[in-house]
Amino acid sequence: MVMRNVKDGLHSINYGMYVVSSKKGDKINGQVVNTVFQITPEPITVATSINKDNLTHEFIESSGVFTVSVLSKDAPFKLIGLFGFRSGREVDKFSQVDYDIGNNGAPYLREHTVAYLEAKVIKKEDLFTHTLYIGEVMDGARLSDEVPMTYDYYHKVIKGKTPKNAATYSGGGA
Amino acid sequence: MVMRNVKDGLHSINYGMYVVSSKKGDKINGQVVNTVFQITPEPITVATSINKDNLTHEFIESSGVFTVSVLSKDAPFKLIGLFGFRSGREVDKFSQVDYDIGNNGAPYLREHTVAYLEAKVIKKEDLFTHTLYIGEVMDGARLSDEVPMTYDYYHKVIKGKTPKNAATYSGGGA
Repeated sequence: MVMRNVKDGLHSINYGMYVVSSKKGDKINGQVVNTVFQITPEPITVATSINKDNLTHEFIESSGVFTVSVLSKDAPFKLIGLFGFRSGREVDKFSQVDYDIGNNGAPYLREHTVAYLEAKVIKKEDLFTHTLYIGEVMDGARLSDEVPMTYDYYHKVIKGKTPKNAATYSGGGA
Repeated sequence: MVMRNVKDGLHSINYGMYVVSSKKGDKINGQVVNTVFQITPEPITVATSINKDNLTHEFIESSGVFTVSVLSKDAPFKLIGLFGFRSGREVDKFSQVDYDIGNNGAPYLREHTVAYLEAKVIKKEDLFTHTLYIGEVMDGARLSDEVPMTYDYYHKVIKGKTPKNAATYSGGGA
């Protein structure tokens, strides 16, 4: 029962909802991620955990950059579904949304987005199924005064399912 | 103005409120942390960022273990102040609260706590002022059905100040 208890405990960790994007050559892609956090204030560094099977992982490995778009509470399920449940190998995700290319060459969303942060990878850790990328934040901006979406709100109100490759996936579509 | 824009963006990242604790010999200590997240589901790993100047950092370096207590929304400022604004070098923090010692030897809170997670450090990254600890979760439990406190709620409702050594400190008591 220990692991079941642990999983109950893990569900109390607080997350936001983000699209982490990158590029490879002239291709761009991104995916929904709930695990983004700041590590240090000076220089500003952030970490994010990406599944090795995902196209965004391949793009970050190639370019060494990533950008975080912070989704707003009003982001519709359609947007989350596009970036969270479909693969960039099958669909050109950014062709269906309003976006810009940042100074690091990766795209950021211009709709339902509170802020974006552009990072270059300075360290990474190989952790079983995922790579933990640590990026120095080089640029970014607040785009709106909307409220950021929390993962808790997404689950309780939007009633979404956790994509199988998410860091917090625990089986059974929790 | 770029860095000012970046800081505005950073404030939209969503965090919880946690006490991360550890031990050194027969001494125990802990501190408030807002940066805890899960990296992988199998095995279950979590990351947390601890300032090198803090006693908790010294204890984790010594024992190689840490425990995360997830604070509930009803945690009073007195508790947050004890663990967030005072040093374990000056006060025996756990002597003032209800706690237990977990299987890894580190303490976890039994008051105003939704859940706890016991971890052993499997990797760490030296990042300027902080060490990012990556721990495998070995045990833990949900302790109550209370709602976890968010960092946003803490700032807006409890009107706390960010401790100077926090990962998200940006100067000026933001």
